[in-house]
Amino acid sequence: MTDKNILTEVSTPSKTFRGFNPTKGEWLTTEFTESSPEAVAAAAEKAEAAFLIYRKKTGAERADFLQKIGEEIMNLGDALITLCQEESGLPEARLQGERGRTIGQLNMFAALLREGSWVDATVDTAIPDRKPLPKSDLRRMNIALGPVGIFGASNFPLAFSVAGGDTASALAAGCTVVVKGHPAHPGTSQLMAAAVLRAAQATNMPDGVFSMVHGQSTAVGMDLVEHPLIKAIGFTGSYRGGKALFDAAARRPEPIPVYAEMGSTNPVFILPGALKERGENLAQGLATSVTMGVGQFCTNPGLVVAQQSTEAEKFLNKTTEVFTGLSAGTMLTPTIKQAFDAGIQKLTQTAGVSVLATGISNESACGGTPHLLRTDATTFLATPEIGEEVFGPSTVYISATGKEELMAIANGLHGHLTATLQATPEDLVEYADLVAILERKVGRLLINGFPTGVEVCASMVHGGPFPATTDARTTSVGTAAIYRFSRPVCYQDFPDSVLPAELQNSNPLNIWRNVNGQLTKDKI
Amino acid sequence: MTDKNILTEVSTPSKTFRGFNPTKGEWLTTEFTESSPEAVAAAAEKAEAAFLIYRKKTGAERADFLQKIGEEIMNLGDALITLCQEESGLPEARLQGERGRTIGQLNMFAALLREGSWVDATVDTAIPDRKPLPKSDLRRMNIALGPVGIFGASNFPLAFSVAGGDTASALAAGCTVVVKGHPAHPGTSQLMAAAVLRAAQATNMPDGVFSMVHGQSTAVGMDLVEHPLIKAIGFTGSYRGGKALFDAAARRPEPIPVYAEMGSTNPVFILPGALKERGENLAQGLATSVTMGVGQFCTNPGLVVAQQSTEAEKFLNKTTEVFTGLSAGTMLTPTIKQAFDAGIQKLTQTAGVSVLATGISNESACGGTPHLLRTDATTFLATPEIGEEVFGPSTVYISATGKEELMAIANGLHGHLTATLQATPEDLVEYADLVAILERKVGRLLINGFPTGVEVCASMVHGGPFPATTDARTTSVGTAAIYRFSRPVCYQDFPDSVLPAELQNSNPLNIWRNVNGQLTKDKI
Repeated sequence: MTDKNILTEVSTPSKTFRGFNPTKGEWLTTEFTESSPEAVAAAAEKAEAAFLIYRKKTGAERADFLQKIGEEIMNLGDALITLCQEESGLPEARLQGERGRTIGQLNMFAALLREGSWVDATVDTAIPDRKPLPKSDLRRMNIALGPVGIFGASNFPLAFSVAGGDTASALAAGCTVVVKGHPAHPGTSQLMAAAVLRAAQATNMPDGVFSMVHGQSTAVGMDLVEHPLIKAIGFTGSYRGGKALFDAAARRPEPIPVYAEMGSTNPVFILPGALKERGENLAQGLATSVTMGVGQFCTNPGLVVAQQSTEAEKFLNKTTEVFTGLSAGTMLTPTIKQAFDAGIQKLTQTAGVSVLATGISNESACGGTPHLLRTDATTFLATPEIGEEVFGPSTVYISATGKEELMAIANGLHGHLTATLQATPEDLVEYADLVAILERKVGRLLINGFPTGVEVCASMVHGGPFPATTDARTTSVGTAAIYRFSRPVCYQDFPDSVLPAELQNSNPLNIWRNVNGQLTKDKI
Repeated sequence: MTDKNILTEVSTPSKTFRGFNPTKGEWLTTEFTESSPEAVAAAAEKAEAAFLIYRKKTGAERADFLQKIGEEIMNLGDALITLCQEESGLPEARLQGERGRTIGQLNMFAALLREGSWVDATVDTAIPDRKPLPKSDLRRMNIALGPVGIFGASNFPLAFSVAGGDTASALAAGCTVVVKGHPAHPGTSQLMAAAVLRAAQATNMPDGVFSMVHGQSTAVGMDLVEHPLIKAIGFTGSYRGGKALFDAAARRPEPIPVYAEMGSTNPVFILPGALKERGENLAQGLATSVTMGVGQFCTNPGLVVAQQSTEAEKFLNKTTEVFTGLSAGTMLTPTIKQAFDAGIQKLTQTAGVSVLATGISNESACGGTPHLLRTDATTFLATPEIGEEVFGPSTVYISATGKEELMAIANGLHGHLTATLQATPEDLVEYADLVAILERKVGRLLINGFPTGVEVCASMVHGGPFPATTDARTTSVGTAAIYRFSRPVCYQDFPDSVLPAELQNSNPLNIWRNVNGQLTKDKI
């Protein structure tokens, strides 16, 4: 397998681009070719041809493929971590952890496939002598949607990029995948794509089961979204990017689902009892969560809401002190750094918003300096822009005069990925309505934690109402993400031998099924 | 409860409309007022206020409400059937059956709620001593989307209208509902709405849990889709109508899901062995399915494909004979009758399409005369319009020269609700690829049946890829329809007392849950 297999070849390479080392502030030397419309089309066509074969592979076969991808990623060794560090500025330990998470995700989906019950097999057996009409035999299960397009994210160059969560869930569902690599880490993308292709070859998967296209311009992504053979899109990134893809997909002659995770400001409500009990600890915890990964997480807490009180002022003083001592970190790209600086500038120029603390800045090309800002509830409620995500290590503290204003803030929120309550048991009784309000606003509600750190497990919801995502009915993290790439099909009066194994009488895969209303592993 | 509670009142009733008796060809006398934009907004606002209360009702309470709706529908007695007959032209027996189905659907969702496991409760318990990071307690379940808009269908004035499947599934999920009644049966809609409201009152449901708006113009529906408090749309009807709603919903500042079931032509493939074995019976079965309900079913088989052979000609002769003897039936509305006649005219004027048989027509205002048309595969493949739905009692027989052409037809299909194979066991072996092709095209695949007659059960999929629906990931018939109106929420580190009952340690509802990867009813 040579490198030329990774990228569908282009006839006339017209445009090239390079990675950037944000730590050194230097362009890297390797040139990458932007994929032409023909190259994108060729990848989609190969994905369609491969889909005919891949979708009929057993769950165990797909599981082998996913696990093998993980092995091939490990086989990339230190070269992957080194190159990814160069391209992303992320520290070695973080990238090692992220590699572990990436492989963990692949293995988690492999386990899901081996267990097999995810297809939601549901059987209603025939009643030939039912009056007035006989009842047919009906059996339903989930099948794969088709070839899908996955966009790599800048902030998780391993775990939400080429072989990341979206790719893993789509491949698990039985979809073939065309990845649009993120231009911020083209070399990393190329290495990861090579690993996926080696795994595909080793596990006898069809040519085209996975391919990658490259590009800096939005045209490459649009070509992918608009290709008629592509049946769904997975994306993690900005609101602007995600919404543009969503709109393009809705405009297609055949509209397709777009799962765009577009981030949010993840409000944290610090209730009076919690402030009293552990205000100082919360200051430290908040600062850690806001600046983790230089604030470049979708679940970064960008809004903190509390009611005026002596304890609130103490908490704020402590938080100010902590923020003042924090150092700037290296952000992923110059564009992200510029957007962060611009966002902070816009906030600080907003009437009624003040800067409480600025961390220790540095002169590097991509330095992101921690910021703690403050406003009051009246200003916030009158100026919705304050609630817009500023991607980076900053947060806005909103002071409410009392419970009423705090509840008004909660009620006025649009969709977010998460919301957090810092609360004592007494707070939770007094603010029970707050939980009910926030349930409608987010995909994940936390009590006494911080929203960064998204556990990869069956019960995770990394999603939420618009504009956090374009599809609140799903999650992009955890095993439930597989449902984004599947749909139900019902088989009526099929002879047993023609049914998929999941629906055959003998239950050869020994999966959980709903048979005539009863959940069971029994045969029929 | 008086009639004025049924329709949100309008300040300046500007436009009225009346029902039409398609059998007699006469306008009915009762005048109905078209809902103003203010009336639609008021209904949405009431639905939002009610949602805050309704979504916290227990499953058992919602089940009581749904069952009570069924009882109140029965309490409408013969008056409902009589009025519905007048407005729809459908026969008494059919409407009695449809009433039974409507109540059956409500009871089915009530049973689903009482059982309770539909919320897909998934729990991953904490691992405080996990290295390098402790694991939080995470618990996920489905909650209701919010107030939703449901559009009544013309062809199921009871089972897919005011208190029909979409309303039942939305109310079951915990959504409040604003129905846009279909203008073809305004009186029936009004009676049914009154029944729902009586049930709401009897079971102590909040004011606004259900309301209805009326109108002939598309503006009323658009007002509903565009209202910011409405969070999803259910629709059954034409491609034009459904696609317009889908587009409007995607254009909203906050896009929302639209579940539009837009019908299809439901291809039937009659394979050589089946033709040989039972060609004559198939002729009778096909004619019955095509003309059932005067062909006014979304699953009406509008395309029949077979390969040239002596047996095929015999089958066709027999089908021609049967169709020639069929009588015209009364279609639902003059508009539907005109669209049917126009569709037939367009088909007969298409080069390469011929009329094999015309049933016995009548002179009534809404008479729909059965038509059997014929074309060949070459013409069909070159003229995709032949495959467009003609809503009514007609079907197009497509003669293929051999297996290759038959497979080309299958490959070229867009999305349909159903596809059917008439096949012997030997056919199924020889045409195994055909099943694989059709799986990608439809929501339901049948062997040796006919697609009309949609069983209401857990395993049903009444849906399919675009343009059959705007969301292939769902079904509008059967218990799985509840998932259209819900989304997952994850609770992290919640004290047991603050969790919804479904997720509490003791499993007080005794539902099936996935706990740390194991499906169980055990407590935690």
